[in-house]
Amino acid sequence: MSKLLIVGTVAFDAIETPFGKTDKILGGAATYIGLSATNFNVPSAIVSVVGNDFPKENIDMLAKRDINVSGLEIVKDGKTFFWSGRYHNDMNSRDTLETQLNVLENFSPVVPEAFKNAPVIMLGNLHPLVQLSVIEQMETRPKLIVLDTMNFWMDIALEDLKKTIAKVDVITINDEEARQLSGEYSLVKAARIIEKMGPKYVVIKKGEHGALLFHEDQMFFAPALPLEEVFDPTGAGDTFAGGFTGFLASTEDYSFKNMKKAIIHGSNLASFCVEKFGTERMEQLSKEEINNRLKMFKKLTQFEIDLA
Amino acid sequence: MSKLLIVGTVAFDAIETPFGKTDKILGGAATYIGLSATNFNVPSAIVSVVGNDFPKENIDMLAKRDINVSGLEIVKDGKTFFWSGRYHNDMNSRDTLETQLNVLENFSPVVPEAFKNAPVIMLGNLHPLVQLSVIEQMETRPKLIVLDTMNFWMDIALEDLKKTIAKVDVITINDEEARQLSGEYSLVKAARIIEKMGPKYVVIKKGEHGALLFHEDQMFFAPALPLEEVFDPTGAGDTFAGGFTGFLASTEDYSFKNMKKAIIHGSNLASFCVEKFGTERMEQLSKEEINNRLKMFKKLTQFEIDLA
Repeated sequence: MSKLLIVGTVAFDAIETPFGKTDKILGGAATYIGLSATNFNVPSAIVSVVGNDFPKENIDMLAKRDINVSGLEIVKDGKTFFWSGRYHNDMNSRDTLETQLNVLENFSPVVPEAFKNAPVIMLGNLHPLVQLSVIEQMETRPKLIVLDTMNFWMDIALEDLKKTIAKVDVITINDEEARQLSGEYSLVKAARIIEKMGPKYVVIKKGEHGALLFHEDQMFFAPALPLEEVFDPTGAGDTFAGGFTGFLASTEDYSFKNMKKAIIHGSNLASFCVEKFGTERMEQLSKEEINNRLKMFKKLTQFEIDLA
Repeated sequence: MSKLLIVGTVAFDAIETPFGKTDKILGGAATYIGLSATNFNVPSAIVSVVGNDFPKENIDMLAKRDINVSGLEIVKDGKTFFWSGRYHNDMNSRDTLETQLNVLENFSPVVPEAFKNAPVIMLGNLHPLVQLSVIEQMETRPKLIVLDTMNFWMDIALEDLKKTIAKVDVITINDEEARQLSGEYSLVKAARIIEKMGPKYVVIKKGEHGALLFHEDQMFFAPALPLEEVFDPTGAGDTFAGGFTGFLASTEDYSFKNMKKAIIHGSNLASFCVEKFGTERMEQLSKEEINNRLKMFKKLTQFEIDLA
């Protein structure tokens, strides 16, 4: 049985950074989420769509990692979603050069029977109504529904987005999006407003500045690991989400305390993702590397203190 | 005997934020550093200069907190240094509206005899040669010399700055300044380059995004406490430096492990500073408030994790 149902794009990306550029390479939210979640040995399944131009090797690569791909629709006369972008020198901002929706334009996800009782769903960034349709196809209400979204949907489909986020447990967005969605500059206030929209947990991703988890009057913060070089930030947020949900699905513990660990695991995995172009680093990751870096996270953040 | 010698401006500020504006109020790096350090009951002394327009109440307020003010020169026919600035809506950036150097223009600090053997010096932001002259007046080499500086001196007095930072143990600068000083975007690389310039410890202040401590191959990170409202960021960096050095001077332990605690204490005190205009909040701070917020810092950052 699938413990983690992942919905999101499986795509081609073409990426330019100050360090170089790629041709069309494997990308997409569901791809990064899946690759990240597999590190917790949790049976997962991807619901997505590609065109007939999508290489079988890529599908095999996912399947070999115990990601069920029976929900990955292949449109015979369609082309795979394509995004191309260029990062600025600071690596924190980027311009979209081209977006070809292709098969995504008419994507209507069908959750395979075997996954309709998955305890955890990770809804990667997609039109909110597509995300909603996945929730509505579930036979039993999942224990945990996590939704990622972006400013684009706040601009063009705010009401649909609000309808969808009313039904989720956790929302992951970046700081600017949290401000846009809430109308509040302070992230503390923004999180409180967003919690009132539905999600009991709000995760605010701040890129190189780390991530915040809010729940009622509790807060937790995980830094991004300071790196010598950020090579390509593409997929870092999705890798974070994959680590977060993969860990939670594997432990079946959805408490705040366990979510703190999940945030650390997500941040840890994201720190690898940015070290190479695309999914390259995530495809080569060893348990030992992951553990070593978890130890670095501990050293980076843990302290003892006596009260004054 | 003074354990902590503080050098820096004692000044008037006029501040505009989205929440309001002030007339001329008490400000200056040494003021904030001193007010912050007093929370550790460490005997300190300020070396600075003001004009005859500086109110005796302000000097009394500092003296009442066991800050020795015998090194605070009062220039009879001079006017106190004045800075006025306006913060943007994001509170992370500001425009300087006016700077009147006044008595600072010819400031030549004289370290009183009684403080020439202070074990810790905190050199607040001033012309690097003024900072250097303080170091040179010490009879015994202090156990710890901490220097704060800013991009302005990198622009107009880089060689003097380099000469001075070659003689200090810790430098505190913000992220943009670390990048400017090192020529490296990555803060990890920047810190390594700056360490080669002299300081064995590099503290990079990232404002609302926290602070990093670097030392050889060790790193530590403290977040800024996420606040509902940042009212006035003026003095936050100096308050951080005052907490950092005040704690180190009080414990007389200059190890990396203790510096981690010092970074937390500095971040903790800075979180109060920004809650009101100017020094107002720092003048009213109770031990209980400080301890409660230290507990919040622990909750915000501490986690347990099992390796994968």
